[in-house]
Amino acid sequence: MKVHLITVGDEILIGQVVDTNSGWIGRLLNLHGARVERVVSVGDQHEQIINALSEALSRADMVLMTGGLGPTKDDITKKALADYFGMEMVFNEPTYERIKRIFEQLGRPTSEAHRHQCYMPTGATLLHNKMGTAPGMWFDYDGKVVVSMPGVPYEMEYIMEHQVIPRLKEYFPGKPIGHRTILTAGEGESRVAERLDAFENTLPEGMKLAYLPNLGQVRLRLTYSTDSQTQLDAALDEKARELESLLPDIAFGRGDRQLEEVLGQILEERGLFIGTAESCTGGYIAHRITAIPGASAYFGGSVVAYSNEMKMKALGVQPETLQQHGAVSEATVREMVQGALAAMPVDVVIAISGIAGPDGGTPEKPVGTIWMAVGSSRGVQAHLLRAGKDRLKNIQYAGTLALEFTRRFILEFH
Amino acid sequence: MKVHLITVGDEILIGQVVDTNSGWIGRLLNLHGARVERVVSVGDQHEQIINALSEALSRADMVLMTGGLGPTKDDITKKALADYFGMEMVFNEPTYERIKRIFEQLGRPTSEAHRHQCYMPTGATLLHNKMGTAPGMWFDYDGKVVVSMPGVPYEMEYIMEHQVIPRLKEYFPGKPIGHRTILTAGEGESRVAERLDAFENTLPEGMKLAYLPNLGQVRLRLTYSTDSQTQLDAALDEKARELESLLPDIAFGRGDRQLEEVLGQILEERGLFIGTAESCTGGYIAHRITAIPGASAYFGGSVVAYSNEMKMKALGVQPETLQQHGAVSEATVREMVQGALAAMPVDVVIAISGIAGPDGGTPEKPVGTIWMAVGSSRGVQAHLLRAGKDRLKNIQYAGTLALEFTRRFILEFH
Repeated sequence: MKVHLITVGDEILIGQVVDTNSGWIGRLLNLHGARVERVVSVGDQHEQIINALSEALSRADMVLMTGGLGPTKDDITKKALADYFGMEMVFNEPTYERIKRIFEQLGRPTSEAHRHQCYMPTGATLLHNKMGTAPGMWFDYDGKVVVSMPGVPYEMEYIMEHQVIPRLKEYFPGKPIGHRTILTAGEGESRVAERLDAFENTLPEGMKLAYLPNLGQVRLRLTYSTDSQTQLDAALDEKARELESLLPDIAFGRGDRQLEEVLGQILEERGLFIGTAESCTGGYIAHRITAIPGASAYFGGSVVAYSNEMKMKALGVQPETLQQHGAVSEATVREMVQGALAAMPVDVVIAISGIAGPDGGTPEKPVGTIWMAVGSSRGVQAHLLRAGKDRLKNIQYAGTLALEFTRRFILEFH
Repeated sequence: MKVHLITVGDEILIGQVVDTNSGWIGRLLNLHGARVERVVSVGDQHEQIINALSEALSRADMVLMTGGLGPTKDDITKKALADYFGMEMVFNEPTYERIKRIFEQLGRPTSEAHRHQCYMPTGATLLHNKMGTAPGMWFDYDGKVVVSMPGVPYEMEYIMEHQVIPRLKEYFPGKPIGHRTILTAGEGESRVAERLDAFENTLPEGMKLAYLPNLGQVRLRLTYSTDSQTQLDAALDEKARELESLLPDIAFGRGDRQLEEVLGQILEERGLFIGTAESCTGGYIAHRITAIPGASAYFGGSVVAYSNEMKMKALGVQPETLQQHGAVSEATVREMVQGALAAMPVDVVIAISGIAGPDGGTPEKPVGTIWMAVGSSRGVQAHLLRAGKDRLKNIQYAGTLALEFTRRFILEFH
């Protein structure tokens, strides 16, 4: 099956918004055995949308479109589709009722723009959009399929996962394809590849192993396709287990779970509460832990101590320690752990202090020098990280490593 | 002048790499009065590249291509171009000499792949690539121009800025185009559209207003094109000022600045230090403030108080307040502000407590109920937010609103 994507929006062409939707859709379709053959981005012009659609339909079995469905004047995808298919626009009462309900709950009135948004092409099957006001639209046309979705990523993602993929499997049944994803953290791609060198040679023909590295994590994805679903699952399960047994230290989970979710489960099972004492990460680690639903069952609290004054005042770091060793030092992060354990209602603490950049480095402690410590009543472990020059990447990388070291600490000591 | 972009690479279509090149080129061309009309991404296949090129040349005056020029499998773009134009491939000695020199300096030998890389289509004008080994290529074809560049962003950027733009201005002296982007926060897209309804009707012919909404923010972009650059700038500046004057409360800046950056500048100018006292946002607001380089000049620290115990212990919230009004209440966030002002070396505090979801709601306080307060020695302002059901979106939305209310508070009181 050939899929073409069309992303609509002047903001993409002038580079004000980076189109992440097409990459996301490419990854999702890939997992379901379909392949995006082409992505076309056009502006908010009727003729351009029509041209792109016409060309796509001449080559593809399925055309997925994003963007141009909002309530404002530059949102014209819907009209272009209706014109292309020769359909009328009719007012859709259920959509309007839904929008009214949403706005009533928010205590806000609906406007004329919202009414306008509820006109839909007659032949479209509306796809429920739980995350926003504009539904997706599914068109059957000449044995092919066109789907139009909002450009807001989480709305598009909801519609793709819950509405498009299930229908797509009915329309275009193919040979089963399967995946197993093993999640690792704390080791780089080339080191992981070295450890799996022999393993890769044992894979059955047609089974592929992909490395997907991202700031402190490497996801390992096994992909296999064969006629029998049973055989497919058995072969993938066996190889996934084998792979995990080769990486017992760094493999923390499977699928699309997040490290902070796995850590949360380990904490909850042991009845432990965690806290963070953050300098250079500025609350980012706490944010990742608390972004997981139910985090209140194991997250106690956090102190972000950016200045030395705050490190002394809120975390009891000794002035002499800061003077002798500096804020970015093993001694300081160890004292931050002890201070945080005393100051907060928590059992385990992650402490971190480093030079996130882009400025603030010295020859001795260049940008990217990051100290972290994990501790509880049973001990403290400190780690030194040497990251890069990019502030945000350093924060994210340090956050992932801190979560991973904490996971290992708890498994070892609790 | 119409420009089409073609980005080549399987990695883009399967979503392993996000194509940031096309957005970068779109921004650059805009600054120079040219407009990207379409972006097409295709895989590393000869036929696909030829098809995309042929279509682009039927519509555009200039086609810019990125990707497929490296020393490995990706000779495919160059070969496709030579085939399309009916050109021979000839060995280019200067390019090979340059590659040998680079590798000698690195102390590494050159390989057969490098020699292979030096075969170029006869009709191509080579464009010097200071940042890498593969030069860009410029083709004049039937009154149109095709340029092929490497996909590595900094190599492409060098060639665009130093080789393509200067030539482009000679080839296509054209009508200038301009943009002004006004940033707003705190009000939804449809509400902003209502406020600008009359304004939109006053726009001169050909000037367009686009709405770019994203979780609590709406960017407003004015676009205009006319023969005289002076007239263009004057008309855009006038309308941008008029637009800002219609939205004095919610317009916080221009261009591509971030709200937390604007807030940081306001704080630094006034010599104020900010801190946060966060419950439901769990450190996210502190993270956003500290993600900006130089934040240590105005960020003091943060307390994340998830549990009631932590709210009492670290922020001095009274047990009676929590009992009578609950953790998610105006009274609690007001006490969090006062407690945080006392506990941290800061002048201004954002406090926030809410039900981020997906669980934990009650009929009285459903998921998405969020209280926030901003305060200093000069007073405290509280706000009630009614957000949606998605935990992460609620955190991000509340974070943006908190930053925006803080900006307004400081402008009003400091």
